[in-house]
Amino acid sequence: MPFEITEQLIEQITGLILNQDDEALLKLLENEHHADIAEVLEDLNLEEATYIIKLLDSDLTSEILMEMDEDDREKILQNLSEKEIAKELDELDTDDAADMIAELPEDRQQKVISNIEDKEHKADIQELLKYDENSAGGLMAKELVKVYDNWNVLKCVREMRAQAEFVTRVHSIYVVNENNQLEGRLSLKDLLTTSTKTPISEVYIPKVDYVNVHDSAEDVARVMQKYDLEAIPVVDDNMHLLGRITIDDIVDVIKEEADKDYQMAAGISQDIEADDTLWQHSRARLPWLFLGLFGGVGAAAIMGGFEEMINKHAVLFFFTPLIGAMAGNVGVQASAIIVQSIANSDLKGSIANRLFKEFSLAMVNGLALSIILFSFTWFWKKEILTSLAISISLFVVIIVAGIIGTFIPLFLHKQKIDPAIATGPFITTSNDIFGILIYFSIAKMLLGI
Amino acid sequence: MPFEITEQLIEQITGLILNQDDEALLKLLENEHHADIAEVLEDLNLEEATYIIKLLDSDLTSEILMEMDEDDREKILQNLSEKEIAKELDELDTDDAADMIAELPEDRQQKVISNIEDKEHKADIQELLKYDENSAGGLMAKELVKVYDNWNVLKCVREMRAQAEFVTRVHSIYVVNENNQLEGRLSLKDLLTTSTKTPISEVYIPKVDYVNVHDSAEDVARVMQKYDLEAIPVVDDNMHLLGRITIDDIVDVIKEEADKDYQMAAGISQDIEADDTLWQHSRARLPWLFLGLFGGVGAAAIMGGFEEMINKHAVLFFFTPLIGAMAGNVGVQASAIIVQSIANSDLKGSIANRLFKEFSLAMVNGLALSIILFSFTWFWKKEILTSLAISISLFVVIIVAGIIGTFIPLFLHKQKIDPAIATGPFITTSNDIFGILIYFSIAKMLLGI
Repeated sequence: MPFEITEQLIEQITGLILNQDDEALLKLLENEHHADIAEVLEDLNLEEATYIIKLLDSDLTSEILMEMDEDDREKILQNLSEKEIAKELDELDTDDAADMIAELPEDRQQKVISNIEDKEHKADIQELLKYDENSAGGLMAKELVKVYDNWNVLKCVREMRAQAEFVTRVHSIYVVNENNQLEGRLSLKDLLTTSTKTPISEVYIPKVDYVNVHDSAEDVARVMQKYDLEAIPVVDDNMHLLGRITIDDIVDVIKEEADKDYQMAAGISQDIEADDTLWQHSRARLPWLFLGLFGGVGAAAIMGGFEEMINKHAVLFFFTPLIGAMAGNVGVQASAIIVQSIANSDLKGSIANRLFKEFSLAMVNGLALSIILFSFTWFWKKEILTSLAISISLFVVIIVAGIIGTFIPLFLHKQKIDPAIATGPFITTSNDIFGILIYFSIAKMLLGI
Repeated sequence: MPFEITEQLIEQITGLILNQDDEALLKLLENEHHADIAEVLEDLNLEEATYIIKLLDSDLTSEILMEMDEDDREKILQNLSEKEIAKELDELDTDDAADMIAELPEDRQQKVISNIEDKEHKADIQELLKYDENSAGGLMAKELVKVYDNWNVLKCVREMRAQAEFVTRVHSIYVVNENNQLEGRLSLKDLLTTSTKTPISEVYIPKVDYVNVHDSAEDVARVMQKYDLEAIPVVDDNMHLLGRITIDDIVDVIKEEADKDYQMAAGISQDIEADDTLWQHSRARLPWLFLGLFGGVGAAAIMGGFEEMINKHAVLFFFTPLIGAMAGNVGVQASAIIVQSIANSDLKGSIANRLFKEFSLAMVNGLALSIILFSFTWFWKKEILTSLAISISLFVVIIVAGIIGTFIPLFLHKQKIDPAIATGPFITTSNDIFGILIYFSIAKMLLGI
């Protein structure tokens, strides 16, 4: 792509803002894509960004604002009047407009809404604000092209010309009956290849995928991905056509879900980005570190209970980080596979099957690793019993860690709790404690005191 | 969605296959969506699945096969003749057809290609096979709707009717000059709302996003996501229009990328699914476990070097799992944020800036955690110097771990190596070793022997 943000470009823009050279700024920016301008704005300071938003046309700035980071957008909106915000909303599709309003402080929301000029647009946005943001209703837009089943192709094309003016992208044409109940769909391709006198009732496809307005965003994403859909109609419990969801919004849902699971696995509990503030990062990371600290203290307390072994078998204590780390790694591997399979809904078989498979795998991996560890410890200390105790413990710990890592996310999923929280520090910490406890118990059994 | 796979349905289908009741099978399945039938097939054994593929029409089975897991598809294709496979390929879009051929063993590829009946389709597929599967060329399909800039809207609509027959979904209409060089695009919406006599040169949009055929799949995904595109044309170095990529393929790329990064962070080095074999799982997981073992042995060796401290300060040894775990957790948190920001290409500022920010964050988090740990150890052992040594070490280890976790992925990215390999076990292991070394060095400094 030809567009690239350079330091030079940013300097040029800040210079033009400083000189209030509006004409040159307009010339420079008005033909660029809103996504590119949004990137430029994120490199400017708040005053400069606001300056440009106030300067450019609202059909462009509304799209720019929607493209920006939520935090940055929020700050700019604070600098705009309710009337100015309403003007941006007039240009946006209903779904984006509702999203933008929902981010405003409550006292501003009503003032902004009352400033929206287009009455139908206003009513549509108010309807969308009623739905949960993680539901189909929260994702859908009211803009769509629909035709009635008693029209013919010619009337259809004529009416669609009018409707299409207000719809950014035409994907499918939905066919409804006189009660606005979804009956089927019509592809643009069919319209292109059918004679104009054909009644719609003869050409429409009655089999149409749809989602209920209360379905979760994840379910919508799953259906659209599975059936490779680019848009899906949204209906209420009585099949009344309410809106439609397009694939670009679903791409965002998929990306956010994946990012969230990834962060969770890395022990980051809130949705943060590299550029967020120190405090946001600290808040997102500290809880899991506390958990880790708690686990480490637990492990220390357990070791304190076996303190009498330290004189004769000091070497045992040298291998506790190894035991802890291996228990953690095996647990994370096992849980990640389960969490990912659940997220992609391609998990088959019973819990017992899963556990048996993980058990077999842990046997194989555990055996390989234990043999290596035995060779090393024997070579180092030449104490066969200690070496045996350490390597047998590792073997058992790997099996237990694998089973815990498999069982916990499956259990949470059954309890309708997001299994992703069971990955990362949670598994690492619990496996640390279990691992150390098993390790010293086995060692004590084999070695006496 | 109404379709659901029940045990009852699977039993009914296996029963019908056993009785070779083709009529009933056809009635049951032929109106279902190919994605649903693909799911059913994955619950059957290989013979049963092959039976159904041979029974149903190839326009349906080709889509079913594309929807299935690569492993399952491969097995079924082994049971089909070259002629049967060629028949499936005739029904597929060129991009899917090329993907399917690429999965076949080399000696079958040529035989299958020579059995494809449609000559143009065959040539298109052979062209696509030349491109790297992770490039724009490997993702694109040859099917698209294009018009010449010297036509008018009427001629355009007529020609498009013919072309559209062969294109599953019409997204954009691409406008080319007489040399097949991309000039711009035409939206279906514009065609619907423009008079039929208008010359194309007057209505087309000259600003069109495109990618080069050699661009990487990740770059294509980034562009399409950024500009919210549902299809993008692919050109060669001289702007000749070669094909187009649609968003559904990009959704798969995004999903795969995210899954890969997630698995990498969890210490799983190959793309595996829960249902893969034991050996595939073992191969994917063992390398990282070896790394962990190696790290643990390293930590043990370091502790062996400080063995003389064990008599007077046994308690130090109780906290090594804590130090190792915290170093690992902090490192993973830091590296995950960097890796994710790089993947989403929203990382700004210099490496020095990043490191300073992580340093400040580690100071804040480290201070909070060290104070808590100090209170605990003091309360437990009432030895102020030991407690100080342990908590100061934790503080330093957290800072070093944060800096390592930030630096390594940034460094790898600069060296054009996928930074995702630096997450998970890699960071955990190196931080384990560094952490233990720092811990005992500080303790020795403060406590003497």
